[in-house]
Amino acid sequence: MKPAILILNGPNLNLTGTRQTAIYGDESFEMYLLKLKKDFTEIDLHYLQSNHEGVLIDALQEAPKKCMGVVINAGGYTHSSIAIADAIAAISIPVIEVHMSNIIAREPYRNHSLMAHVCKGSICGFGLASYALGIIALLRAENEKGKIM
Amino acid sequence: MKPAILILNGPNLNLTGTRQTAIYGDESFEMYLLKLKKDFTEIDLHYLQSNHEGVLIDALQEAPKKCMGVVINAGGYTHSSIAIADAIAAISIPVIEVHMSNIIAREPYRNHSLMAHVCKGSICGFGLASYALGIIALLRAENEKGKIM
Amino acid sequence: MKPAILILNGPNLNLTGTRQTAIYGDESFEMYLLKLKKDFTEIDLHYLQSNHEGVLIDALQEAPKKCMGVVINAGGYTHSSIAIADAIAAISIPVIEVHMSNIIAREPYRNHSLMAHVCKGSICGFGLASYALGIIALLRAENEKGKIM
Amino acid sequence: MKPAILILNGPNLNLTGTRQTAIYGDESFEMYLLKLKKDFTEIDLHYLQSNHEGVLIDALQEAPKKCMGVVINAGGYTHSSIAIADAIAAISIPVIEVHMSNIIAREPYRNHSLMAHVCKGSICGFGLASYALGIIALLRAENEKGKIM
Amino acid sequence: MKPAILILNGPNLNLTGTRQTAIYGDESFEMYLLKLKKDFTEIDLHYLQSNHEGVLIDALQEAPKKCMGVVINAGGYTHSSIAIADAIAAISIPVIEVHMSNIIAREPYRNHSLMAHVCKGSICGFGLASYALGIIALLRAENEKGKIM
Amino acid sequence: MKPAILILNGPNLNLTGTRQTAIYGDESFEMYLLKLKKDFTEIDLHYLQSNHEGVLIDALQEAPKKCMGVVINAGGYTHSSIAIADAIAAISIPVIEVHMSNIIAREPYRNHSLMAHVCKGSICGFGLASYALGIIALLRAENEKGKIM
Amino acid sequence: MKPAILILNGPNLNLTGTRQTAIYGDESFEMYLLKLKKDFTEIDLHYLQSNHEGVLIDALQEAPKKCMGVVINAGGYTHSSIAIADAIAAISIPVIEVHMSNIIAREPYRNHSLMAHVCKGSICGFGLASYALGIIALLRAENEKGKIM
Amino acid sequence: MKPAILILNGPNLNLTGTRQTAIYGDESFEMYLLKLKKDFTEIDLHYLQSNHEGVLIDALQEAPKKCMGVVINAGGYTHSSIAIADAIAAISIPVIEVHMSNIIAREPYRNHSLMAHVCKGSICGFGLASYALGIIALLRAENEKGKIM
Amino acid sequence: MKPAILILNGPNLNLTGTRQTAIYGDESFEMYLLKLKKDFTEIDLHYLQSNHEGVLIDALQEAPKKCMGVVINAGGYTHSSIAIADAIAAISIPVIEVHMSNIIAREPYRNHSLMAHVCKGSICGFGLASYALGIIALLRAENEKGKIM
Amino acid sequence: MKPAILILNGPNLNLTGTRQTAIYGDESFEMYLLKLKKDFTEIDLHYLQSNHEGVLIDALQEAPKKCMGVVINAGGYTHSSIAIADAIAAISIPVIEVHMSNIIAREPYRNHSLMAHVCKGSICGFGLASYALGIIALLRAENEKGKIM
Amino acid sequence: MKPAILILNGPNLNLTGTRQTAIYGDESFEMYLLKLKKDFTEIDLHYLQSNHEGVLIDALQEAPKKCMGVVINAGGYTHSSIAIADAIAAISIPVIEVHMSNIIAREPYRNHSLMAHVCKGSICGFGLASYALGIIALLRAENEKGKIM
Amino acid sequence: MKPAILILNGPNLNLTGTRQTAIYGDESFEMYLLKLKKDFTEIDLHYLQSNHEGVLIDALQEAPKKCMGVVINAGGYTHSSIAIADAIAAISIPVIEVHMSNIIAREPYRNHSLMAHVCKGSICGFGLASYALGIIALLRAENEKGKIM
Repeated sequence: MKPAILILNGPNLNLTGTRQTAIYGDESFEMYLLKLKKDFTEIDLHYLQSNHEGVLIDALQEAPKKCMGVVINAGGYTHSSIAIADAIAAISIPVIEVHMSNIIAREPYRNHSLMAHVCKGSICGFGLASYALGIIALLRAENEKGKIM
Repeated sequence: MKPAILILNGPNLNLTGTRQTAIYGDESFEMYLLKLKKDFTEIDLHYLQSNHEGVLIDALQEAPKKCMGVVINAGGYTHSSIAIADAIAAISIPVIEVHMSNIIAREPYRNHSLMAHVCKGSICGFGLASYALGIIALLRAENEKGKIM
Repeated sequence: MKPAILILNGPNLNLTGTRQTAIYGDESFEMYLLKLKKDFTEIDLHYLQSNHEGVLIDALQEAPKKCMGVVINAGGYTHSSIAIADAIAAISIPVIEVHMSNIIAREPYRNHSLMAHVCKGSICGFGLASYALGIIALLRAENEKGKIM
Repeated sequence: MKPAILILNGPNLNLTGTRQTAIYGDESFEMYLLKLKKDFTEIDLHYLQSNHEGVLIDALQEAPKKCMGVVINAGGYTHSSIAIADAIAAISIPVIEVHMSNIIAREPYRNHSLMAHVCKGSICGFGLASYALGIIALLRAENEKGKIM
Repeated sequence: MKPAILILNGPNLNLTGTRQTAIYGDESFEMYLLKLKKDFTEIDLHYLQSNHEGVLIDALQEAPKKCMGVVINAGGYTHSSIAIADAIAAISIPVIEVHMSNIIAREPYRNHSLMAHVCKGSICGFGLASYALGIIALLRAENEKGKIM
Repeated sequence: MKPAILILNGPNLNLTGTRQTAIYGDESFEMYLLKLKKDFTEIDLHYLQSNHEGVLIDALQEAPKKCMGVVINAGGYTHSSIAIADAIAAISIPVIEVHMSNIIAREPYRNHSLMAHVCKGSICGFGLASYALGIIALLRAENEKGKIM
Repeated sequence: MKPAILILNGPNLNLTGTRQTAIYGDESFEMYLLKLKKDFTEIDLHYLQSNHEGVLIDALQEAPKKCMGVVINAGGYTHSSIAIADAIAAISIPVIEVHMSNIIAREPYRNHSLMAHVCKGSICGFGLASYALGIIALLRAENEKGKIM
Repeated sequence: MKPAILILNGPNLNLTGTRQTAIYGDESFEMYLLKLKKDFTEIDLHYLQSNHEGVLIDALQEAPKKCMGVVINAGGYTHSSIAIADAIAAISIPVIEVHMSNIIAREPYRNHSLMAHVCKGSICGFGLASYALGIIALLRAENEKGKIM
Repeated sequence: MKPAILILNGPNLNLTGTRQTAIYGDESFEMYLLKLKKDFTEIDLHYLQSNHEGVLIDALQEAPKKCMGVVINAGGYTHSSIAIADAIAAISIPVIEVHMSNIIAREPYRNHSLMAHVCKGSICGFGLASYALGIIALLRAENEKGKIM
Repeated sequence: MKPAILILNGPNLNLTGTRQTAIYGDESFEMYLLKLKKDFTEIDLHYLQSNHEGVLIDALQEAPKKCMGVVINAGGYTHSSIAIADAIAAISIPVIEVHMSNIIAREPYRNHSLMAHVCKGSICGFGLASYALGIIALLRAENEKGKIM
Repeated sequence: MKPAILILNGPNLNLTGTRQTAIYGDESFEMYLLKLKKDFTEIDLHYLQSNHEGVLIDALQEAPKKCMGVVINAGGYTHSSIAIADAIAAISIPVIEVHMSNIIAREPYRNHSLMAHVCKGSICGFGLASYALGIIALLRAENEKGKIM
Repeated sequence: MKPAILILNGPNLNLTGTRQTAIYGDESFEMYLLKLKKDFTEIDLHYLQSNHEGVLIDALQEAPKKCMGVVINAGGYTHSSIAIADAIAAISIPVIEVHMSNIIAREPYRNHSLMAHVCKGSICGFGLASYALGIIALLRAENEKGKIM
């Protein structure tokens, strides 16, 4: 049975591909997810998107039962949700924070991330590819002594 | 078929009429809604109230399928929800922010609105009538060249 | 004899229609005023524009003698004039604050309004139509029990 | 019929006993609840935990129908949820805020509580016993003239 | 010929006696001025009130030609007018700042005074009597070696 | 011999019952102390009130020689005395901070407590009963395995 | 028997006349007190200076038993002692705050006064004469209907 | 006919030469203006000084009808007048900001300039010569391709 | 000829492996560089470390002549060097910012990065592997249409 | 007769050797004082410790009568006592500030020292030896032209 | 022998003409320098550009040996280098600060200049011509009594 | 062979004796160094001054190879160089921070020291003698059990 990774997307990320395309591009996340699955055949990719803060927390609490790690883009909750950050801190598997845009270069209220304090690492600014980089970083956590990545 | 407008009420606004009546008056929103419908017979008034941030985001994402505009009072989420603001920015129909009280004249943490940056305009301080003014402003967006209002 | 409303415009609003037309549009206020008068025939619309803070304060102090309410756009004084705000607080008739642009979405030093603390309500972001909405809101203050607006 | 008190727990408090045990101890809340019920036989103890901000607000709005008071630990929402604070302010029964750790002695973003402004009182730093102290304080509100506690 | 003192009143102080009487009392300044003149027969009391910042500056620049000192209550300009403060610093006669209310105990934007840095002294909180205390303090500057006051 | 607890009251708390009775009630602390002694017969209650910061520090340093714990209400020193906080940190017995009013809901300069960082826990908002709750919490520290409280 | 007024001087004011004479002048307070007593023969002037915060609080609590009012210069405690301010708020007789220098024109940490919020009024910048002005202001509180001062 | 430049001086600059001569020197502006006119014979130098914010705004609005550019020293209004800055932004000719002293090296409230955001450039610290440098900079705007200056 | 990438290390990174090994691990950067070269044989890896801010700027200005991109860890200059950030903004090839530790979770003065505003993206928290992830991200910029990573 | 130096210790420094020994070591100050006296036989070492702010001020005011200088460790008052700082500024002999720990590397509210502005110099971070360094520095003030130290 | 002036350019100014040409224009500084030399034949123009903070400090320390003044554009160091500012303050010849863009109208971290406090004057916003204006201002310092400029 | 200590001076300290002599005195550091060497014959005193941040970092990294400790005065870099502070933290020998003036009593941007967090201790305000005190403190670190100093 293959190891699993959860990709967890926060509010409005279901609109990727149609919303503010100048910043986020015009590829839908579902399309991109298919590509990801084709590229990373050695793992099971679980996927959940929700606009509900509580649903994201529930998912994080459940994740360790099925997954070896989480790649999270908490969207607008990145900057305000202590509760999601607490959930990340409470679980035992590594969580990687990703963002499509470079959040530091945007509006002031997007400059800091409450997630960063509790995540293993952060990757931002690479568009949808930030997710792929997040998966690679997680895989490496499992297989540290072999090939560098 | 008549054009539709969504009135979207955030947390605790279901208590209007019984809660802090010195500030908000003692008329329930349901009562007021009946009056609004009688006054604006040329449009369909859709109405949703929820205490759940995620439900409000879902509703905003769905609104363009049925409505020409939204009148929103995000209640306590006005001051903290980047996620709702992102949803407003992501949809293509105009959204008007309304408040019953003049939020600037209240506690410091109610002084700023994250919604204002992404809404077409803001109306506050007129009690329940703020909603009526919001509807008028939306109608005008549809019919700019005729009568001023 | 018809009831009267004073529209009070602060500094540089005499340039409306020629100044920063991308933000304020290219219709002059005088033109718009004619339209307003045609639409609101049931009231006398008084109008004063001045670049002088003191003239605006004088006008506010005089207003209760002739008018049932004031619609004010204090322009650049909105953000710095405690003296105008004091004058608004000192008079007994309702004052409505209006702005053509959504001031919250502009430069930081335009984000707060000293007027808002003492005005009955605020309306901003609807271009010249903000003035019409302000008049409607004032009229309603006189005739609260009849038609909603 | 015995009077009832609602114990309301916010996000991640369902993990008490397994999460950050150095701070919160290793007793689960369910275990502790049994002890509480055995100790306070003169009242009905209702209990709800949710990771969803909206569910907590719904519960607060419903509480006055069945309970004489609420003991709330809003977890991560303590520091950011104006909406929960508004719900507390909107209901007529007393609400006591409790925390297991002394929140003032932790990270800066946990230093202030939006709940404190609207709760009758606050108790923090006593581990799970903070809940027991909260119940005692509520009981006293009912029976002020008798025995001190 | 008797020495002269200028009493200079800023914006809205012409409304004293009718405005916010809970704070400022119901005696008009003109009434009070008559009493002052009867009490201080040894000096000429000049008086000017204006809502115009520029008029106040003009008056300060002219004052040394006729007066031995100025008692100023700059009203709302107290907190924002660097230009009036510069005028006070530029003239050679002593200027005393007075306020009827204790400005430090009011709204935050009234807490500091730009005048205080350049005035000889400040007197506030004694209602209209603050002006009388200001005159006494000025007279003492002229006659320091005789009777204490 | 019975175990002892020190109740330590800071400046102006000797006026309880006559001072700002709307906030603090009209019962004197001496009266309340009698009731406390009658209720907690299993312990010796020592009591000291002083307006002197140094006396409070001396008392804290001496307390471990005679008492098993301290219930402190440092009054106005709560917000400014690093020296008292250092004394609490320096002694080996538990110290509980209590306040009659909910300090977070009052003036900004009363919002934070320097004591909280070094006390075992904080209890505020329950009027004089805050002291009783403090004693109960201390007793529990001695007898953790028996009855919950 | 003559009415009495307490002059209360805080830390280091016993050094007046020898300390920083460029700011405070070279007259000792004892000398000045003799002059004050000669000038105000209609009242008993009580005087206390202490470097101890607690002694000043004790004195304020005792003052109403013997005096009709207090003139206080709290020296360095002006800017940091919530406890002295609480004592002023707790007593029923009027307290006037005086300072020899204009505290607003000095170092930032001397710019605000915690006393001002609870005193009837403030007088500063007139050297030792600030005390005389304070006494006059107190006398006026007793005899408001007669001569203006 | 020669091109014209307006030199616009704000409040208290009419006192140059007699006011704070340690900072501003003892030459009056009228004297200096004569020298400027003798040096720049190829242009008409218009001059206006006013202590009235409104007069300065009026003058800026009128300037484009007669002048190719403006050299402004807004004095104390530099730091607080959004209205003057709006007027500068509203007109089509270049405006250069000048100051005699280096405003950044003075009191904090003089450190920033609201004018700088809307002026073509800023020159400060060169005494009266700042005005001459301002004129040279304006002339250059007209004749960019010839001699460097 | 193979494409080249420059790895640019700022101050003290030459001590990696011996300095604060609890945070940075005990592998020297030279060792790690060898592994990187073995893994990424399809590119030339250039490497420069310097404690001199100016040397880093010179290197960035030269990089476009020889390299397709830069992976930079500016060390302590990350948080203070506007000059390095200007150099990154000035050159035409993509620059990726990497950090071994998660800088957001450390001391406040390490919380923000002046680099982030001008870099294509940021990767932090993965120890030395952050560099490998940076290289992969750069390669992807060259070959976007092929395999995802 | 030998010259004298006063060592003045503030609140809780009497606990040195038993309190927070990880930071302050386990040697009592009395022990250390004996060593100091043996080492500096050429001077009289006076010593006073008090938890009372007023006692410390009294001692500073008296010091010039008997001592050539003061070595002060104001403990917790270092960060809040303007009154002690005023006393230091008021006396004519040099005062040296010492701290056992490096106060800048501790909690934020210990980062600044009100004493530093008025002391001749500061020495911190050397444990008890900070006192010896303070004495050496004072001796040097007396004998500047001889041996460097 | 002609008097000399040093033009000192900080980091990245060697890229002028190729970097961010929308802000800085497309003329190289070397080109512009030739024009400057042709225009100011009465002086020797020395020129140094460096990306190294230390080199700029060395140059400032050496400048008085050969030059009558310095025109400095410290680039990115303008906002952060206390060390360069100290060097300017340490030398005896006048230093003029110039900037091509109006730094106040750009990013917040470019808003203030540490140089301004120690330079004779500042000129910004005139593109490359800011340097020419700087030279003129320096020449005037030498020849104050003759022609105005 | 004698133990060695490195004295490391930052930018502009080579000008000591000629620069701002009112603050720093008129003795050159070279002169003072000769005196130091004569006084401390039991150690080798190494000396380096540089205006280059990178050179200072290089020297700190090299120091442990030859010296038992460092006395550093980082000059203007004290307040801004995280990179120098990182170098101090990275090396194993003790580093003492010294300043000639009392940096806390000067301009705000000189009030804090980034060095203090990583140095063993700080000594400031004693002019050149601060260096001698620094050496004594270092020697004591070597010989803690013998004579106190």
